Parts: sequence; C-alpha cells; structure tokens
Amino acid sequence: MRGELLFTPGPVMMHKRALEAMIGQVVSHRSEEFRQLLDDVRELLAKVYQGGEPLVLTGSGTLAVESMTWSIVEPGEQVLVVSHGEFGERLANALAQRGARVDILEAERPGVHVPAEKVVEKLEEKEYSAVATVYTETSLGLSYRDVEYIAKKAKSCGALVLVDAVSALAGEPVPPPGVVDAVASAAQKAIAGPPGVSFVAVSEDALEKMKRVTKKPPSYLDLWKVYKFHSERRETPYTPAVNLLYGLREALRLIVEKGLDVWINMHQERAELLYSKLPGLGFKPVVEPEYRANTVAAFYTPIPSGRLAAELAKRGIRVARGMGSLKDQVVRIATMGWLPEDAYERLFKALSEILA
Amino acid sequence: MRGELLFTPGPVMMHKRALEAMIGQVVSHRSEEFRQLLDDVRELLAKVYQGGEPLVLTGSGTLAVESMTWSIVEPGEQVLVVSHGEFGERLANALAQRGARVDILEAERPGVHVPAEKVVEKLEEKEYSAVATVYTETSLGLSYRDVEYIAKKAKSCGALVLVDAVSALAGEPVPPPGVVDAVASAAQKAIAGPPGVSFVAVSEDALEKMKRVTKKPPSYLDLWKVYKFHSERRETPYTPAVNLLYGLREALRLIVEKGLDVWINMHQERAELLYSKLPGLGFKPVVEPEYRANTVAAFYTPIPSGRLAAELAKRGIRVARGMGSLKDQVVRIATMGWLPEDAYERLFKALSEILA
Repeated sequence: MRGELLFTPGPVMMHKRALEAMIGQVVSHRSEEFRQLLDDVRELLAKVYQGGEPLVLTGSGTLAVESMTWSIVEPGEQVLVVSHGEFGERLANALAQRGARVDILEAERPGVHVPAEKVVEKLEEKEYSAVATVYTETSLGLSYRDVEYIAKKAKSCGALVLVDAVSALAGEPVPPPGVVDAVASAAQKAIAGPPGVSFVAVSEDALEKMKRVTKKPPSYLDLWKVYKFHSERRETPYTPAVNLLYGLREALRLIVEKGLDVWINMHQERAELLYSKLPGLGFKPVVEPEYRANTVAAFYTPIPSGRLAAELAKRGIRVARGMGSLKDQVVRIATMGWLPEDAYERLFKALSEILA
Repeated sequence: MRGELLFTPGPVMMHKRALEAMIGQVVSHRSEEFRQLLDDVRELLAKVYQGGEPLVLTGSGTLAVESMTWSIVEPGEQVLVVSHGEFGERLANALAQRGARVDILEAERPGVHVPAEKVVEKLEEKEYSAVATVYTETSLGLSYRDVEYIAKKAKSCGALVLVDAVSALAGEPVPPPGVVDAVASAAQKAIAGPPGVSFVAVSEDALEKMKRVTKKPPSYLDLWKVYKFHSERRETPYTPAVNLLYGLREALRLIVEKGLDVWINMHQERAELLYSKLPGLGFKPVVEPEYRANTVAAFYTPIPSGRLAAELAKRGIRVARGMGSLKDQVVRIATMGWLPEDAYERLFKALSEILA
C-alpha cells in the first residue's frame, strides 16, 4: 500500500518537496522553461557525478546501462566484463547482444570480489576496447571498490571503462568520468528521485568514441544523439518525462544542500547499523567486509526469505528477497531514500517479533 | 512558463485529477499495490485500444515505435513502409537499423496521401513480412485513414501490420489490434497523460511472431519480455515510472468516464474549428480535406512561423512550427489535452492581433 516503509533497492521513498514538484502543469519540452530545468538537472548531476557530461534519459537504469553499452561499444570489439552477480551478467549480456566479443571474469562465489590482479592479468594478456563492470552489485550488496585502480590500468592500456553505478551513485564515492569513461545510473536509487529517469555521465574519451561509432544503436539508446541535443539545443531528442525531471531537480537540490559527503555517509551509517544489528538476530552477511555496499545489505536469513518478507509486509515494511539461486535464502535491505526517523527502529522491532 | 496554453502536439495539458495522482509516495514495483495499478492501466488501455494486449513501457513514443519494430521484425526481412513525412521516415529508419530490407512508398508531396491502390500493388508484387505506417503523421497533421483497408489486404498476404499511432490513439478511430498487429502510442498525446510512459498493443499474430524472433532486440526494447512479465507476474521487467502510471490511470479513467467516442469527437470538433477559422486569417491548410488529422492541424502561415510562434509565446500560448523543410512556412496547432474553456477564443484573438 502507499505509505509502506521501503527498504527495497529501488524505487525508494522520496522527500515531500520532490514529490510535490511533480504535479505542476506539463510544460513543452521545446520551451525555455524546460531548457532551464534540463540545465539545472544536468548541473546538479555533474555535482553528484563530480564531473563528466551528464546525459539524461527517460527510462529505467537498464535503459541507461544498455544505452551506454550500445552507444560506446561496436559489434566485433573485445570487451572484458568483471562480474559479481546478476547485474554483472546482464551487463555482459547487453554487450554480447550488441555484438561485442565478451570475456567475463566472475567472482568465485557469491559475496567475494574478483581480485584486481586477475583483471590486470587479463588486460596485459589481450587488447580490449573496453572494460565494463558494476560498481554496486544490487543482487548481493557488493560494492566493487577496486574500480578506480582497475580503471587506471585499463585506460593506460587504451581501453574505455564503463561502469554500471545504478545502485551506487550518491551512495558510494564512485570514480568520476575522467577517471572512468561512462557511469550509468538512475534517479530512483541513492538519489531518492522518481523512478523513470536515468542518466549516463561520460568522459571526453567516451564522447570521442561515440562520435566515431559506425553501426548506430537504436535511436532511443543513442547517447551521441542525446549529447548533440543537450549541447546544441539544451533539449532532449525525444519527449522527456517533464514532471519527473521537476521531481529529480528537487531530489538533487536536497542532496547538494546537505552536501554529497554527508549524503554518502548517511548510507554508510545505515549499512553499518544493519551489519551491526542483524547478526544478533540470526542473519549472516553475504559479502566480505571490505566490499559491503553502502546502499544495500544482503544477509542469509534464519527463516525462508519469502516468509520473512511476507511477515514484514503485513507490518507495512518492504524488503527484497535474494535473486536467482539465492532467492529463498537471502534477504536484501536497502539504505536509500528519505526514510522516517524511526524507520530502522521499526524494522528491528518487526524482525525481532517475527523471529521470536 | 508553467501555465502556458499548450497547443503543441505533445506533451499536452493534463487534468488536475491526473496531475495530483502523481504525488503520492513511491510504491515498490514488486508489490500488490503496483500490480493492481498495472492491471488497471492495462484494462483501461484495452478499452482505448478497443482490443489487443497492451504492453506498457517507460519512455517516449519513440521507444514504443522502436520496441515495436525491433521486437516484431527480424534482420533480413522485407518490410514495406508507407510514409507521409518525418515520422514515416523515422519508422523506415528504425526498421533499416534493425536490419530489415525496407521498401518505402512516399507521398508525392507534403499533404497528400499515398493512394491505397499503390500499396496494394506493392503487396501483390512482392512478399513482405510486415507493412508499417504512421496513422497520424504529426509533422503535417495527416491521418492515414486507409490503414484498415490496407491492413486487410496485407494480412491476407501474410504480412503483419505495424502502426505508429503515437499522435492518433484516443483522437482517431485507430484500427484495433486484431485488424492490425501492433499499435504504438504514448501517454502525453490524445490520452492527455504524463510524458514518459508509452505502450504497444499487440495482436495474437504479433505475439506469435515475437515469440519466434531469434535475434533478440536490446532488453529494454524487448516487447516479448514485457509480455511475459505482464502475463506471468502482473509486473514490468524493469523499474517503471510508478508515479506516472498513477497519473496515466486517472487520465484513462477520465476518457472512459466521458466515453471514447465523445473524446474522439472532441478532437475532431476542435480540428474543424481550426480549419474553419484559420483560413479567414490568411492560413492555408497543408493537408487535403479527407486526411486532415483530428489531433493536430498544419497551416502555411502568412508570416514566418518563427515570428508567429514567438509572438504567441509572448501571450502565453505555445504552438509548434513545421518540421524539416517546412519549418519556417508551417505552423502546427494541436487539439489534444485538457484545455481551458476559452483556449481557442484566446488563440484566435491572439492570432488576429498578431496578424493585424
């Protein structure tokens, strides 16, 4: 029901100010009013990205990730994917569908990271056009904090670095465009904006590459076209979700008002709270300590996750179950969005009751 | 500015009830609350489509059209496109990008239709997998009312019929899925819903075809995947624009409450009003009488369209200029959305003043 506490890894609860910004009358996307709105959103996004050229899309995080892969990688190119789970696999699939030749480095088991040396080895062994990975693997709550180190190595080998940061941006110190080449994210995660808007911030190198791509992606996925419209007309190529952008602008302003560091820290503190409290209730963390994400925490549950989630739902609290083979054994609790002050207290109380 | 009168061919002005429905707190897209919302939207859409299986997307009309072409047509297939302007060309380009072999039948000049006999001739000459066309060519305000006749012929030849009805659905009696095979549209046109949501309603034959497609489209464009999620889980594959769907549900309810016929007639009456008043002010209709769209009217202007649009904008009234080579000579005035009672009076008064 509307009014549930959302501890799900997106969409997340929005601030009243951002919600209310969405009900003004629709404006034309070819008006100065809209251009100013888009300018504001892009300027604020650049603050959250800490650089790069933010390109704004109407669609989910999947659209952002697929636009990134289809716009920057050409059929036949060699790409290395470092994967820690479901979303790493999806990234590899998107690249394979694009026609790239994909080598995939996978974690040995759920919850551990791929050692950076293994990636470096691969980069020394073969010439890659691009290296792609997921910063925060939402299916496990694993943040791949080696991305910056790997990116430096990859870029020195001439590879572009593509990062799916859908569940990371504004919740983790994601390396900015420049250090990496493309960072895909979405509004309804750590930014606490409305679901339906996503974005990719790109580096100069990525822009150069997109300009040269000969086999164009479907127009809706064409980031080069978005860039041209943004830079030449301060517009989007296709009708954007105008009302959602008003909401997103407020969500971004709220972060900038607080300070990006404060906002990232809040996620970290919430995650630490979860990791400190839940083991006492019989939950076992899925991810090794150094790679535990700020934005979503995953635990093996003492009772089947379906029953746990259903019991919480009865109490107006929504969490997510595991994905794939971990569906029944794992519960995922996110730390994103404008949660009420007593949200975690209510969560812990409910968990204690259910497990009593 | 917010509060301008929008006579632009999308996005359009929304009813207060639909706008206000969008500010409730975000709900999880994996909750029963959301499933009910999606069910409602799809049930209401089926009423407006008058049949078919409506598939709901987060994105613009372009996404709906590209999802339709990439999901139903395979690389190498022969497709016939009947084009009357800019959006007909885009449809042909989307199909060519998909890898189809595209034959294109174009109107002899802007404003006239492609005679149905010419299409039938082509269908008898060659075997096509699909015939694709735009019902209402937004760039000219031309509604291709021969679609149903052509569809019967095409289907008897074994071709699927794909229709871009972005600026037509709910404003014209578009042939329902069953008569044709796929009808792409979007919320921010004659439905007067929020920009950012679009949909494709498909026939049984289209579902059969999508199931068989071997070279899959990018996941975000994959209508078969959307169908599977809708039918098996009452969900969408990716995070949808939840708040916009609340707005769309209200927009659709408003139409169904009025009656679809009444709603279509309103557009026709508004178009007739434009065509009866504007010639007296020195405007010349672009389109031959029988093919004039209900949803958008195009006129050659007595003064350059840029000056006209700018003068109207000063008065808080927004219209659209022509597209492509007609940009400066043509003005386009749409009839969609919840316009205030005195909207047309204000428009005619402003036009008289400007041209005096």
